[in-house]
Amino acid sequence: QEMIKKLLLGFGCCACVLTIGILIGHFAISKTPFWPSDVFKDVDENFITAFLSEVDNIQIEHNLRELTKVPHMATTEGDEQTVQFMLKRWQDRETGLDDAWREEYSVYLSFPNTTNPNKVTVGQDKEVNYTADQLDPNVVPPYAAYSPAGHAKGKLVYANYGRPSDYMHLNETVDLRGTIAITRYGGAGRAAKAINAEPYGVVGVLVYTDPYDINDGLMSDLNETYPHSWYLPPSGVERGSFNTLYGDLLTPYLAAKGIDIPGLPPIPIQPIGFEDASTLICALDGLPAPNDWQGSFKCKYNFGGPGFKNTSTFKDSDVKLDIYNYGTVKNSSNVMGVIRGSVEPDRYVIYGNHRDSWVHGAIDPSSGTSVMLEITRVLGRMVKQGKWRPRRSIIFGSWGAEEFGLIGSAEYTEQYFAKLSERTVAYINVDIAVFANATLRASGMPSIQNVIFTSAKQVSAPGLKSTSVYDNWIKYSNKSSPTHGVIPRIGYLTGAGSDYAPFVHYLGITSMDISYTYDRIIYTMFIFSVGFTSHQAIARTAGNVLIRLADSLLLPFSCSDYAETLEDYLKEAVEQYEVELKTKNISMESLKHAVSSFRLAASHLDEVIQSTDLKNEPLKVRMINDQLMLLDRAFLDPLAFPDKYAFRHVIWASSSAGKPTFPGLADAFAKAVSSGQTSDWNKVHYHLSVLNQAIEGAAHTLTNVI
Amino acid sequence: QEMIKKLLLGFGCCACVLTIGILIGHFAISKTPFWPSDVFKDVDENFITAFLSEVDNIQIEHNLRELTKVPHMATTEGDEQTVQFMLKRWQDRETGLDDAWREEYSVYLSFPNTTNPNKVTVGQDKEVNYTADQLDPNVVPPYAAYSPAGHAKGKLVYANYGRPSDYMHLNETVDLRGTIAITRYGGAGRAAKAINAEPYGVVGVLVYTDPYDINDGLMSDLNETYPHSWYLPPSGVERGSFNTLYGDLLTPYLAAKGIDIPGLPPIPIQPIGFEDASTLICALDGLPAPNDWQGSFKCKYNFGGPGFKNTSTFKDSDVKLDIYNYGTVKNSSNVMGVIRGSVEPDRYVIYGNHRDSWVHGAIDPSSGTSVMLEITRVLGRMVKQGKWRPRRSIIFGSWGAEEFGLIGSAEYTEQYFAKLSERTVAYINVDIAVFANATLRASGMPSIQNVIFTSAKQVSAPGLKSTSVYDNWIKYSNKSSPTHGVIPRIGYLTGAGSDYAPFVHYLGITSMDISYTYDRIIYTMFIFSVGFTSHQAIARTAGNVLIRLADSLLLPFSCSDYAETLEDYLKEAVEQYEVELKTKNISMESLKHAVSSFRLAASHLDEVIQSTDLKNEPLKVRMINDQLMLLDRAFLDPLAFPDKYAFRHVIWASSSAGKPTFPGLADAFAKAVSSGQTSDWNKVHYHLSVLNQAIEGAAHTLTNVI
Repeated sequence: QEMIKKLLLGFGCCACVLTIGILIGHFAISKTPFWPSDVFKDVDENFITAFLSEVDNIQIEHNLRELTKVPHMATTEGDEQTVQFMLKRWQDRETGLDDAWREEYSVYLSFPNTTNPNKVTVGQDKEVNYTADQLDPNVVPPYAAYSPAGHAKGKLVYANYGRPSDYMHLNETVDLRGTIAITRYGGAGRAAKAINAEPYGVVGVLVYTDPYDINDGLMSDLNETYPHSWYLPPSGVERGSFNTLYGDLLTPYLAAKGIDIPGLPPIPIQPIGFEDASTLICALDGLPAPNDWQGSFKCKYNFGGPGFKNTSTFKDSDVKLDIYNYGTVKNSSNVMGVIRGSVEPDRYVIYGNHRDSWVHGAIDPSSGTSVMLEITRVLGRMVKQGKWRPRRSIIFGSWGAEEFGLIGSAEYTEQYFAKLSERTVAYINVDIAVFANATLRASGMPSIQNVIFTSAKQVSAPGLKSTSVYDNWIKYSNKSSPTHGVIPRIGYLTGAGSDYAPFVHYLGITSMDISYTYDRIIYTMFIFSVGFTSHQAIARTAGNVLIRLADSLLLPFSCSDYAETLEDYLKEAVEQYEVELKTKNISMESLKHAVSSFRLAASHLDEVIQSTDLKNEPLKVRMINDQLMLLDRAFLDPLAFPDKYAFRHVIWASSSAGKPTFPGLADAFAKAVSSGQTSDWNKVHYHLSVLNQAIEGAAHTLTNVI
Repeated sequence: QEMIKKLLLGFGCCACVLTIGILIGHFAISKTPFWPSDVFKDVDENFITAFLSEVDNIQIEHNLRELTKVPHMATTEGDEQTVQFMLKRWQDRETGLDDAWREEYSVYLSFPNTTNPNKVTVGQDKEVNYTADQLDPNVVPPYAAYSPAGHAKGKLVYANYGRPSDYMHLNETVDLRGTIAITRYGGAGRAAKAINAEPYGVVGVLVYTDPYDINDGLMSDLNETYPHSWYLPPSGVERGSFNTLYGDLLTPYLAAKGIDIPGLPPIPIQPIGFEDASTLICALDGLPAPNDWQGSFKCKYNFGGPGFKNTSTFKDSDVKLDIYNYGTVKNSSNVMGVIRGSVEPDRYVIYGNHRDSWVHGAIDPSSGTSVMLEITRVLGRMVKQGKWRPRRSIIFGSWGAEEFGLIGSAEYTEQYFAKLSERTVAYINVDIAVFANATLRASGMPSIQNVIFTSAKQVSAPGLKSTSVYDNWIKYSNKSSPTHGVIPRIGYLTGAGSDYAPFVHYLGITSMDISYTYDRIIYTMFIFSVGFTSHQAIARTAGNVLIRLADSLLLPFSCSDYAETLEDYLKEAVEQYEVELKTKNISMESLKHAVSSFRLAASHLDEVIQSTDLKNEPLKVRMINDQLMLLDRAFLDPLAFPDKYAFRHVIWASSSAGKPTFPGLADAFAKAVSSGQTSDWNKVHYHLSVLNQAIEGAAHTLTNVI
């Protein structure tokens, strides 16, 4: 009995202890919530370190050699070779992505006629030697894509940049009817030089790059230019797309048919080198052109008689353009690749770069493509080895037919409009990765400056082991921020110069464009950085940004930095416009209110972020991330710019007013001042209302959700 | 020692058992993840039962008596009283909401002049007695809001519905210059009757409701109409807003100024009762009008000489309109109230109803307002008592100035465009809650039919204890679905008849409109349901839908039901258009492909939902819910209907073609057939492309996210 008692007591004790143990095990130890999977996965700095050390300059050099073996103009055989090369790399079993494929679009392009080359002649026989810059038969001769074919003959005149004001000024002293105008690149869009000329009766246009605008303002000869320096050689010709829309011209906004093509040059136009341009311009007769029309040629730039001086060998000669360009519909491909996100696969970070070039494209775009391929190699291998998978999905895009007007990227954004609008966190564009080896250059929405700074601080500047890309950058380009003190200056993506345009202007996606560059803006350069260390620095910096955007638990965007730019814009607008607007009874008070609402809302969101337990509230983190992701979408207004194709972002749309302020307001104000018409002042008021509504609307998305 | 051994052994055993216990407690029992808060909160059927039983018909009757004490036309003193009443109820400490406030907008309205009443006279002295229907001095006399003031005099003609084709037909036999046209409601928008008339030289327009179109096609006298039946009495006049936009007319899309007001009647127009109309029309001279122009008056409807028969007392008389309406900017208020969501506060279910009436508004809108107040009373009390808090946030909107053109709701959607687009799960509109007591009527996107069915099955039909609202409904209006068999027929929200319009057409938010009604469509009825049981049934049904939308872990939307409607649309379009389109070399294949892509994508999403462990993957549930919530947003295209104000939803936009198919395609096709012009056939092609892109784009949002 005693035994039984003891046993019972023992069992009792055991049961008690077991129960206590179970209770401890269940409640005490598992008090920290147990979250399945990686719901709170955040950036891993060790992974960043590993990524940075894996990025290899030699690999980038190999990529570039492969990509530039043959010219790869859009839809040519060379382009198809690059498609295959990208697919092979992204489908590689050891270093490829989760998935990669091509997407084809039927698009309208313009080519020179190979059997009937375009000709520019002076008088009977002097042929302008515009084809001489490269001898490879696969190299497309310089031409103006989308220039109409045609034969134009007339006396030459010099029309500066070919802006409306230039032709107006020139027409005051020279009868432009039946003339050929020679214009320099810059100041107006390429197609605009012909579009602006046509109303004055000009029958053809030549375009060249003045050394003044590209080679540090110096007239340059063969000994001073490439390959002896960064400078554009005298026979170098900038090719380009001469249209004013972007995306496929036959299918604006969608895959339609039977729509007239707007914005193309109405008269023949042809680019030439500055050596030829100098011979022509220095022989021109007529009155001297104004000071700000003068370039770097060692002569006085005259308007043209029209035509040449009697003392010149050309004297009575006409200039004749024989243009045989033709338009045709061709299949252009994007190559797409993805790494699936582990936690939020429905959030996308997109990294893109176009693939097509005009010629070999060692700079534009293949410096960018070779960098992208190195980033995908390093990340792809980590994924294949099971060492890493990003929190969000990463989409890589190798866009086709960018040179003809951002066609591949624009068609992509049109086709997947809803999906991309709803889910894209950010777009990173690296087109020309390396112009030169002096400094980083970055443009984008102000909200992303901080993640670029963080990334650039972790990368060594090329050739400067102990200096970071950030520390080097701040020396070349900086500004003073009320919040942050002196910081590198981030540019604005106001134009449509590369594939970021459809993402920024049409979709309203937070975007950036990153490159290594000269300490001034350089157009065409044909130099590799020494040992590809600049390429490596870009791969590291852009890759670091990409990983942070894909992996951060909380998106690394600052709405307060956006507010700072809106305040700068407002200050400029008030200084420039307020006095004049008051005389028209148009108040800027509601715009001031809107900017101040935005600042308050941004500060509020900063506080919410500070006070949120990020590691314990998955839906709250997602809520805040949605606010951050969708901020730029709130600035879209499809009715803001009825005359501007696919520009909807009221803060970043292009503006011809050239002021660092709200673009629609600046343009409307300039027009109203110039015309003085009431209807134009009403449009200024309309743009103020558009801005108020967009900025107040954006502020509403950042305040308390309910 | 033995003792110590035993003790050690005992301790050892205890430690072992404890460890086992801890291990069991930690691993075995807590294997189900422990989620803090209510991340997986779902609909609670017990709560629904409690809600249904709490909804009280007597409370609704009290609400209605309070709301209809005085006429409450927008911005009048009576309207302000209803604002205060709503605020008092929603701010009540025991039955109110979390928060309630008013939002004021400065809007452009049109009123009759009280000192100088509008007059319609025949000849020298016979005054048309259009003001006699109500004698209260606070009751606004019948007038056409936004009719210009003016004096118009001329011979009378009868112009049927005042459609373009009606005036064209009439003009073939009668010279319309200088005439006054009498038209019946229906067939064309109110303002359109004057807009269509003006090009023919008509100088003024009268409008009346023909008994044919409202009282079951019977001519009705005082003994047969209200209060003896549902029928509109002979002196009853339908008031209305005579404009073609919706939202504030001075600020289309935003708060702008200096914009011309489009779409208003260019000539004076005035509504009258059918008793007066009958006197006028039966005296008309001229040729007999066609059969389909005849109404229910006991006479032959003639075109008019123009003017009256010689045998009539009016013979040579002119009809004269003296209209003194004036436009003015007034402050109109929305009253807003919210219940904050506990788990996903950044997801909104919006429930709305306008507050303003033309007169007492016992039906339109106060039957709906009294129902809304009962829903908020029951839910508000549950919240105040801590018994319930919805998963998502609920926003209640009591819109102002709906009768003048959906002004309050439209301004709200403009002001909060980005925020509402990003976060709104659904909009429920209950305007006139009870037209009559026969059957439920519901219109909306096909994706929400199932949640309405589920809710209607749980509510007893008024006066029929053992029959559900659903079982009663299916008897009155049903259709055969390939998937579901015979089900009640859900209507489509293609027009702009109530405040759902800005949510459907401008924001692309999944919406519905719910009421109890007659077994035919009735325009103006002044009857309460017996004991307010129909009101109660609507409060229960709409409230049930509201709770399900706010509380369901997974949104109760079916994309496959949407696919079924697209397939119906496609079938109709192919039958109607394909043969003719082939002759124009326009193919419908890509549209067929798009609809089939959508069906596949919808089925795919159904499978993903089936295979998802909803109770264990918070971010995956949110991902699927985002796909469901944003589906309708993918159908928006701001460029689809450049001529239709704020219509962007390519599936539900209004169409004058009257076919149950894609509206833009139907209208473009009708126009092209009628004009035969190539440019119009190109627009047909354009609309096909718009549809392809929207439907394929929507399908992309439903397939695998990456």
